[in-house]
Amino acid sequence: MASRRPALRLLNQCKAQSQLGSQTVANLSRTSSRRTLSSLPSFGGPGQAAPFSRYLGWAALSLLIAAPVAYNMAVDTPLTLDSLTLAERDQQTKRESGVSDASPMRLRMEKFVKEQQKEIVRALEGVDGTKFRVDEWQRKEGGGGVTCVLQDGKVFEKAGVGVSVVYGTLPKPAIMKMRANHKNLPDGDNIPDSLEFFAAGLSLVVHPKNPMAPTVHLNYRYFETANADGSSGAWWFGGGSDLTPSYLFDEDAIQFHKSLKEVCDAHDKDYYPRFKKWCDEYFYNKHRGESRGVGGIFFDDLDETVQDKENTFAFIKDALESFVPTYVPIVNKRKDMPFTEQEKEWQQIRRGKYVEFNLVHDRGTAFGLNTPGARVESILMSLPLTASWKYMFEPEPNSREARLVEVLKNPKEWV
Amino acid sequence: MASRRPALRLLNQCKAQSQLGSQTVANLSRTSSRRTLSSLPSFGGPGQAAPFSRYLGWAALSLLIAAPVAYNMAVDTPLTLDSLTLAERDQQTKRESGVSDASPMRLRMEKFVKEQQKEIVRALEGVDGTKFRVDEWQRKEGGGGVTCVLQDGKVFEKAGVGVSVVYGTLPKPAIMKMRANHKNLPDGDNIPDSLEFFAAGLSLVVHPKNPMAPTVHLNYRYFETANADGSSGAWWFGGGSDLTPSYLFDEDAIQFHKSLKEVCDAHDKDYYPRFKKWCDEYFYNKHRGESRGVGGIFFDDLDETVQDKENTFAFIKDALESFVPTYVPIVNKRKDMPFTEQEKEWQQIRRGKYVEFNLVHDRGTAFGLNTPGARVESILMSLPLTASWKYMFEPEPNSREARLVEVLKNPKEWV
Repeated sequence: MASRRPALRLLNQCKAQSQLGSQTVANLSRTSSRRTLSSLPSFGGPGQAAPFSRYLGWAALSLLIAAPVAYNMAVDTPLTLDSLTLAERDQQTKRESGVSDASPMRLRMEKFVKEQQKEIVRALEGVDGTKFRVDEWQRKEGGGGVTCVLQDGKVFEKAGVGVSVVYGTLPKPAIMKMRANHKNLPDGDNIPDSLEFFAAGLSLVVHPKNPMAPTVHLNYRYFETANADGSSGAWWFGGGSDLTPSYLFDEDAIQFHKSLKEVCDAHDKDYYPRFKKWCDEYFYNKHRGESRGVGGIFFDDLDETVQDKENTFAFIKDALESFVPTYVPIVNKRKDMPFTEQEKEWQQIRRGKYVEFNLVHDRGTAFGLNTPGARVESILMSLPLTASWKYMFEPEPNSREARLVEVLKNPKEWV
Repeated sequence: MASRRPALRLLNQCKAQSQLGSQTVANLSRTSSRRTLSSLPSFGGPGQAAPFSRYLGWAALSLLIAAPVAYNMAVDTPLTLDSLTLAERDQQTKRESGVSDASPMRLRMEKFVKEQQKEIVRALEGVDGTKFRVDEWQRKEGGGGVTCVLQDGKVFEKAGVGVSVVYGTLPKPAIMKMRANHKNLPDGDNIPDSLEFFAAGLSLVVHPKNPMAPTVHLNYRYFETANADGSSGAWWFGGGSDLTPSYLFDEDAIQFHKSLKEVCDAHDKDYYPRFKKWCDEYFYNKHRGESRGVGGIFFDDLDETVQDKENTFAFIKDALESFVPTYVPIVNKRKDMPFTEQEKEWQQIRRGKYVEFNLVHDRGTAFGLNTPGARVESILMSLPLTASWKYMFEPEPNSREARLVEVLKNPKEWV
């Protein structure tokens, strides 16, 4: 039974720290260890006494998970427990019976994003020929993360793929605030003093070296609250993916959008037009009056008012699984194209705008950086390796650079 | 009289646009022209029919002027005028009698920062051997700016020196908010529906190429409100200067602080300790748990509760005039020092932290970038030409890089 000890230790730890105190959901333990992804034991299946504490993670890029939820709400109402917390129950379930299609959605989503992280890391390593660095850490309040970064590779300047899992407690004011968007949360006199929640997601940003190859960003996340008996309460999915070229190849933008549209259409014909517009609106560098890139899809609060949980998860799975077959062919087509010093310079200037969006406008990044104790390096893995700011730099009229800016100022319908 | 026409045109323009509508004080005209600083006529002295409209400027880096004042307050109460606006009166005064020691402080401060801008630009051009680019523009609501930038020079990677002058109108809620810090503003039933204000300042950021030469930042600003009869109402000065080395030479930090302390001590023995602490607190990259640099001084709301206007202006003048004789010897001592590729890389990583502070924490930058129509390129002239983000980069223990970080985490008393 020696192998179960870490999990038991965590159980006690969880009990002692089940209240978040005045800290927010993004407050992270700084404990981390470094290993290769392939050396991680696989997700706790039946009969496996996995040291689950090492898996629970809060890859802070995935702060987007918690940001819409926890923005401006310190979790300061301690929860007095006379039974197991949600995290403890989930540990027990995974240890005793593993995760199957009959398991609660939170466990299925966690298992899925962790598998996908490995798939994506493997695919990108295949393109680059360089291994990712893998950092795992625990969140002492419940949860943790695995952050994988490939830096200064042959093809990629920087590629970060992060998974995070968060267990926490929402105080009453946060529940009330959330209820505006989620009518299946308790209402009126039924609002409890606090509510346990779970969030898990995968986030990635890939900045290729070649200025002809576009940067890509992706994030898919799941959130749910727990009822007192441990059953799932309110739930929703969010996420999306968007492309940011320095040099615009229409065929790449079309292929990227077409793939997303196909995935969306297979589930709901309304998804693509709605989520495409949402993406153009969210990833807008408003002080520059231009989009961050050529868009993609973005959505939040996808719950049973739109579609049932099972079908929504099927959509999320298809969307995330479409990443590798969509992006890898694009980057393979561009990674060895010739380019000039001027073209590299233009890429660096576009990188500067990317930094501006992430540091000035992105809600998740701002929330994370302003959270005491956050794992800053995981949040900022989204930033490029290098960027540049040239005062009053304007592309030549009618140049390829000018055309990109034109498209960023007037988002196009690509399919 | 032909030479007076631009000023007359502005008078009419001012009349038509004397209300800021729903726009904030940082809302800028995008009209700008480019010339060399030496080609600018000198500030309107007696007998000079200076095209004042071209001088009035809002160098957006100096948004710090307006930020503490105008944060979160859209100026949306139109002012109905049956007499001249403050800007119109000032134009008239300057045209007819020029600016002397007997003039209102706003005109003296404006004249002073414009003279200092030329002095500083001349001194930095002397060090670099490269000319600054000079952009002037007008602010259609009243005021304007001159932004001078030297980019990719021999010594400086990027140096920006901006002057701005803003005439605007504060609505009642803004006056009420301001009154918390400034008891000489109208109170209770005496609070008018709106109040004209004036703000002027100089801001600069210099990023040298050589990693041994430190980045420097400076900003001095003046704010006042106008009484109905055109006399000055409430007023205060703000500003400071701070040093950001990539490689720490204690003697540079000591010299920088010593010079500031001398200037402070000549006016008030309390200034330096108070303003040094304020600087350490303000320029703190809290998500990194470290200061932006080795500090200097920072202060705001310096008004008659501290010292009379004349003596405060004398302090501001001494502080600004001490910049060139303090910083130029430091940069001259460092600009030709040998350095390795690794040292340049470390500088780039420190540049990244500088970008983080400016985009995430600096109130003035955030305010400016979120203001529709702001001259973004003037605000972001503070960013370095290039910056870098390396995931989990840690300096070697006991290295020079590690010592810098140590000092940034534990600000020192340098004098």
